[in-house]
Amino acid sequence: MLNIVESVGEGVTDLAPGDHVLPVFTGECKECAHCKSEESNMCDLLRINVDRGVMIGDGKSRFSINGQPIFHFVGTSTFSEYTVIHDGCLAKINPEAPLDKVCVLSCGISTGLGATLNVAKPAKGSTVAIFGLGAVGLAAMEGARLAGASRIIGVDVNPAKYEQAKKFGCTDFVNPKDHNKPVQEVLIEMTNGGVDRSVECTGNVNAMISAFECVHDGWGVAVLVGVPHREDQFKTHPMNFLNEKTLKGTFFGNYKPRTDLPNVVEMYMKKELEVEKFITHSVPFSEINTAFDLMLKGEGLRCIMRMEE
Amino acid sequence: MLNIVESVGEGVTDLAPGDHVLPVFTGECKECAHCKSEESNMCDLLRINVDRGVMIGDGKSRFSINGQPIFHFVGTSTFSEYTVIHDGCLAKINPEAPLDKVCVLSCGISTGLGATLNVAKPAKGSTVAIFGLGAVGLAAMEGARLAGASRIIGVDVNPAKYEQAKKFGCTDFVNPKDHNKPVQEVLIEMTNGGVDRSVECTGNVNAMISAFECVHDGWGVAVLVGVPHREDQFKTHPMNFLNEKTLKGTFFGNYKPRTDLPNVVEMYMKKELEVEKFITHSVPFSEINTAFDLMLKGEGLRCIMRMEE
Ligand SMILES: NC(=O)c1ccc[n+]([C@@H]2O[C@H](COP(=O)([O-])OP(=O)(O)OC[C@H]3O[C@@H](n4cnc5c(N)ncnc54)[C@H](O)[C@@H]3O)[C@@H](O)[C@H]2O)c1
Ligand SMILES: NC(=O)c1ccc[n+]([C@@H]2O[C@H](COP(=O)([O-])OP(=O)(O)OC[C@H]3O[C@@H](n4cnc5c(N)ncnc54)[C@H](O)[C@@H]3O)[C@@H](O)[C@H]2O)c1
Repeated sequence: MLNIVESVGEGVTDLAPGDHVLPVFTGECKECAHCKSEESNMCDLLRINVDRGVMIGDGKSRFSINGQPIFHFVGTSTFSEYTVIHDGCLAKINPEAPLDKVCVLSCGISTGLGATLNVAKPAKGSTVAIFGLGAVGLAAMEGARLAGASRIIGVDVNPAKYEQAKKFGCTDFVNPKDHNKPVQEVLIEMTNGGVDRSVECTGNVNAMISAFECVHDGWGVAVLVGVPHREDQFKTHPMNFLNEKTLKGTFFGNYKPRTDLPNVVEMYMKKELEVEKFITHSVPFSEINTAFDLMLKGEGLRCIMRMEE
Repeated sequence: MLNIVESVGEGVTDLAPGDHVLPVFTGECKECAHCKSEESNMCDLLRINVDRGVMIGDGKSRFSINGQPIFHFVGTSTFSEYTVIHDGCLAKINPEAPLDKVCVLSCGISTGLGATLNVAKPAKGSTVAIFGLGAVGLAAMEGARLAGASRIIGVDVNPAKYEQAKKFGCTDFVNPKDHNKPVQEVLIEMTNGGVDRSVECTGNVNAMISAFECVHDGWGVAVLVGVPHREDQFKTHPMNFLNEKTLKGTFFGNYKPRTDLPNVVEMYMKKELEVEKFITHSVPFSEINTAFDLMLKGEGLRCIMRMEE
């Protein structure tokens, strides 16, 4: 089964057959400057590489069909019952954790959650704006709820997103299309000067700029999560920085996969983090194309694929 | 004498005649949301206001000549032997501190120092780039030296600035004009991936962009100090943020005038902070125009004006 170690290669000391693991698209070698830094999770050796397609080390694939090699997929190749993964891309987790739930913590959910908890770090009682209420934005919202934010403002151009967001602690909703001034001005007015923290999860560069400009001077922090387009430019007046607004971004919520993911799983085990809210669908592996359709249509948040029918 | 309290008005409880003080162009009311925030020093009531010209409260001036009121200057009006200042703009300091030295801590020196110590916060042994080696940049450099940075790279378009900067701990100097590629690329090559911290003290928007882009992914932090022009736009690719580079700015080095300046004075008293390096000239008040000429020509760093001939 994909989330249980079946065997380990030479030199692997941290994992043993039977261990429960989460495979992650980006890794942690524990040796490079990034892994040794307390702040970074952008491992030099195992940072996400969507083009590699082979194992680091011998540069070969571990899959084949009729003698023809098949490439690996984003370091994990998880559309498979058995796979071969670099041990630096596997987080060993609590064996009690239900794998059909915590598997969603391998990517977007942890990204949004960590963007808020590890990077934006809102104080208890603060006001947080979340731009974009897809799965990543809702996970960021879940982080704001867990941090004890007292006001959580969802911002999305799709008004249908509000209803679902309420389950994640959304107290106010703003649709930028409902206003004839920039949404940052709307938020600054609503909050008497700006939000304490904002997290952008849209991938739209204008939303990134709004998310930055809507934070309070003196202490506001904005965190970018959405992946921009190649030609995008982030533009703002530098005075916004001198007025002590901070702009950060994050990759995978600043979580170090091996060091930190086991703790995220524990947050779920302690019933703090509500993972179930994110799982809206489940299909057997034979219906993988249904899962893709759901994703492409933007229906639901996360669809679990079951390997055993 | 300007730095000694002569008398206090009604309701002033924190200061008494004889106290030694530093007058500051921006204040700390200790009541507003900014003063109550641990992060901000941008007091709502007493934040710098170059246009006000009168006392907060009754909106009147305290100076006159032949019955004609004279306006106050940036809240302090310190080109005068006696002045009237809001108690929120006065930092009470150690009476042992030599006033003809520590007076320079009221503005630019603290700004640069705090930009590094309070905002960039370089770790011991790290690499710091300082853009612009005027008095503010050299104070930022002094902060890097005090923080124990092991490599301090000065960046200035004026090569004459290197010699003086060596006294402030500058280990390397880069003149952007000596290279036919963007200076951020030069710095990234010199440091094998980017500097740990950078502090921009030029006021030039291109230097701001370079100062941001030259920091290391994963953990780099850039701090803007220079005051931009009205029409400037800070532009960068948003991916720089997703790669975990942080961009901040600061007003007066994030020091709260009343709470923090007394401690800066103590840094000088303990012979950590070397204030004398910044004082290159001293003139009697009657030669104030000589002092302005020195400033306009960019000669020297700070000129002390002596009220007693
Ligand atoms: N930084 C990382 O490590 C990381 C990891 C995973 C995903 N991501 C990125 O996070 C982003 C969100 O992912 P998702 O799966 O939740 O996407 P999604 O498409 O499900 O959700 C995006 C939401 O943003 C809304 N939106 C679009 N433009 C907007 C605008 N201008 N203002 C307000 N709302 C707007 C959409 O209506 C939608 O609800 C994507 O860009 C994705 O690539 C980043
Ligand atoms: N944020 C605040 O609270 C605050 C407070 C005080 C001063 N300031 C600002 O700090 C800045 C520096 O003040 P200063 O008194 O040291 O000024 P200064 O003019 O003495 O020094 C500026 C230095 O920057 C250099 N420079 C100019 N353009 C450059 C470029 N593109 N690349 C590299 N170097 C360049 C100049 O050669 C000069 O040496 C000013 O913009 C000032 O307004 C800000």
